Amino acid sequence: MKAFYGDLKLGILGGGQLGRMLIQQAINYNVTVKILDPDREAPCRKLCDEFTVGSLGDYETVYNFGKTVDLLTIEIEKVNVDALEQLEKEGVLVYPQSRIIRLIQDKGLQKQFFKENDIPTADFQIISSPRELLQSTIPFPYIQKLRRDGYDGKGVYKVVDESYLDKAFKEPSLIEQWVDFEKEIGVIVARNENGEVSTFPLVEMEFNPEANLVEFLISPSTLPFEVQQQAEQIAKKIAESLKIVGLLAVEMFLDKNGKILVNELAPRPHNSGHQTIEGNVVSQFEQHLRAIFNQPLGDTTCLNNAIMVNVLGEAGYEGPAVYKGIEKVLKVPGVYIHLYGKALTKPFRKMGHVTIVDADREKAIEKARFVQKTLKVIS
Amino acid sequence: MKAFYGDLKLGILGGGQLGRMLIQQAINYNVTVKILDPDREAPCRKLCDEFTVGSLGDYETVYNFGKTVDLLTIEIEKVNVDALEQLEKEGVLVYPQSRIIRLIQDKGLQKQFFKENDIPTADFQIISSPRELLQSTIPFPYIQKLRRDGYDGKGVYKVVDESYLDKAFKEPSLIEQWVDFEKEIGVIVARNENGEVSTFPLVEMEFNPEANLVEFLISPSTLPFEVQQQAEQIAKKIAESLKIVGLLAVEMFLDKNGKILVNELAPRPHNSGHQTIEGNVVSQFEQHLRAIFNQPLGDTTCLNNAIMVNVLGEAGYEGPAVYKGIEKVLKVPGVYIHLYGKALTKPFRKMGHVTIVDADREKAIEKARFVQKTLKVIS
Repeated sequence: MKAFYGDLKLGILGGGQLGRMLIQQAINYNVTVKILDPDREAPCRKLCDEFTVGSLGDYETVYNFGKTVDLLTIEIEKVNVDALEQLEKEGVLVYPQSRIIRLIQDKGLQKQFFKENDIPTADFQIISSPRELLQSTIPFPYIQKLRRDGYDGKGVYKVVDESYLDKAFKEPSLIEQWVDFEKEIGVIVARNENGEVSTFPLVEMEFNPEANLVEFLISPSTLPFEVQQQAEQIAKKIAESLKIVGLLAVEMFLDKNGKILVNELAPRPHNSGHQTIEGNVVSQFEQHLRAIFNQPLGDTTCLNNAIMVNVLGEAGYEGPAVYKGIEKVLKVPGVYIHLYGKALTKPFRKMGHVTIVDADREKAIEKARFVQKTLKVIS
Repeated sequence: MKAFYGDLKLGILGGGQLGRMLIQQAINYNVTVKILDPDREAPCRKLCDEFTVGSLGDYETVYNFGKTVDLLTIEIEKVNVDALEQLEKEGVLVYPQSRIIRLIQDKGLQKQFFKENDIPTADFQIISSPRELLQSTIPFPYIQKLRRDGYDGKGVYKVVDESYLDKAFKEPSLIEQWVDFEKEIGVIVARNENGEVSTFPLVEMEFNPEANLVEFLISPSTLPFEVQQQAEQIAKKIAESLKIVGLLAVEMFLDKNGKILVNELAPRPHNSGHQTIEGNVVSQFEQHLRAIFNQPLGDTTCLNNAIMVNVLGEAGYEGPAVYKGIEKVLKVPGVYIHLYGKALTKPFRKMGHVTIVDADREKAIEKARFVQKTLKVIS
């Protein structure tokens, strides 16, 4: 890679909150940042050297954008991979690599990759037609997921019994045995081009079932050491099998029998790593930059108990965002507010997050509950 | 103050590294940031919502810029204060207040303020003409400082004996008894409009005598508790006497007899507080924002030993900056690089800083020395 501090042009596909936090960190390295996003009001629009409005799914748009940078990364997987492949051929560095984005875009290929590489995952079957679904051998209940373009709970359907089948997706999908899990857990792993691999400590998640979003995340996990170690080893194994360059978020279930099953991958900074900004020696954003710049990876040690609370648009409100309770929340020591610069709120939209740190885990949880009930985004 | 998250227009006079780090933090609060700076290549130029090129000393320029914002702050004291005064009269919030910037711009007024408020400081005399200098009663050696526009060691002259007098400044100046100090120390204090006052823990500085710049800063200090307590009390007393809104950096000497003498004030984020980004629960930049937004001040507790090393342009090089040794430095755990986005280096120009954290103070110092000899800015 050419000497880059000062003159490296970094392109990011997507200009949302992940890009925004990546820029906050990239500022420290004098990088020239260019952003492509379809929304002219995207959170990154004013924070980069160049902001281009355009479709992330369009070959020409992504290709033309990529030709203006030295290194291209993503903050969302739903991008035109053919363009990325062509850019790689023409010498643009694309991290994560296009083949990995292609694999991860398709939940079916992702599952097959797990199977081929002995990565523990729930039993599954790839479904190409409604007829195949009727003939499937996975017992009820199971989860049907669209192979492509699902996110944040969209494109996911729980098939409890036969009566649910008529509302099932008709598109190519994947069905997975329902996991009656104890906990959702996650590990973020990074790998640089030199092959150095490093994991962040395991985190535990709590979902808001109504919004189907992570709304509460605890770092580090207090699960038994063997579970932590096993989860980190699985994440490392995946990163090494993929030979990914960049960050990889590995979402997992811990089932009632203490078995870990990998759910999904995201090849980028992830909502489940936001607490690393204040909670760990290096943040996921710093680590992603180090990985894609092929620099030594940073120390991921936890500095403190850290809880991440998503700040979601309140149900029933849609329009220009108003934040209630900020002053009360800032009164609590060890509370960090991150707003994402989105002008409009709507129900369950991710408007920001708050990290709460405390040397006492119970106190951290108590503070997090206070933040959750105090900070509201209305209109 | 009007509900501001999302719609507060914050103006910053100056677009250098302090503005840059303030923006990195302000991003978390959805603030619209406008910058005024004379240099079209200033470090903030691409990171704000609006960047205006113009003189900070010109009444019309500052006034017109100020009229476009709700809240105006500074990252450099050398600004047109008459314009700020007028803006205050017209309802723009100016923090720190114009009267404080006016006081601090004039080292003579600053010293008189110390005297009137019983703030310990070296004996001094205000000098308005070369004749007055010859008749001064301060014994040799003493330091002559221009009353206005000195910075980073410029406008300062040591008068060792009579033979030095012919090279002394002719302009209005201040002479101060030479302090044979043991250590330079500093406290950053913040005050919000509600009158809440909070200090960061005392830090110790080491200067590069050749460059006359802080190049090494250790936080927290290991000086005796009484010294720490006294220094923090002095800083609080100054903030309260001034009724400042915002941050105030208080530079002090600890003399050989253990007595603290206040040297100078800076009413803004300061080089001696950069280590707070990683070393303390809240950073000086977060604290400045909380103070000027009249929000509860944050917890300033140290999380770790933190050392701040200035990254200065290497002597003998002038031109487009090239950074040597970054990879070696990033290999060391607990090292954080902050580059300031300046295209051109020159001898001793502040091009960035590095913070080093370690639970072991001696190890932190060792790492800092390694960083200092490894990371070089050449051309």
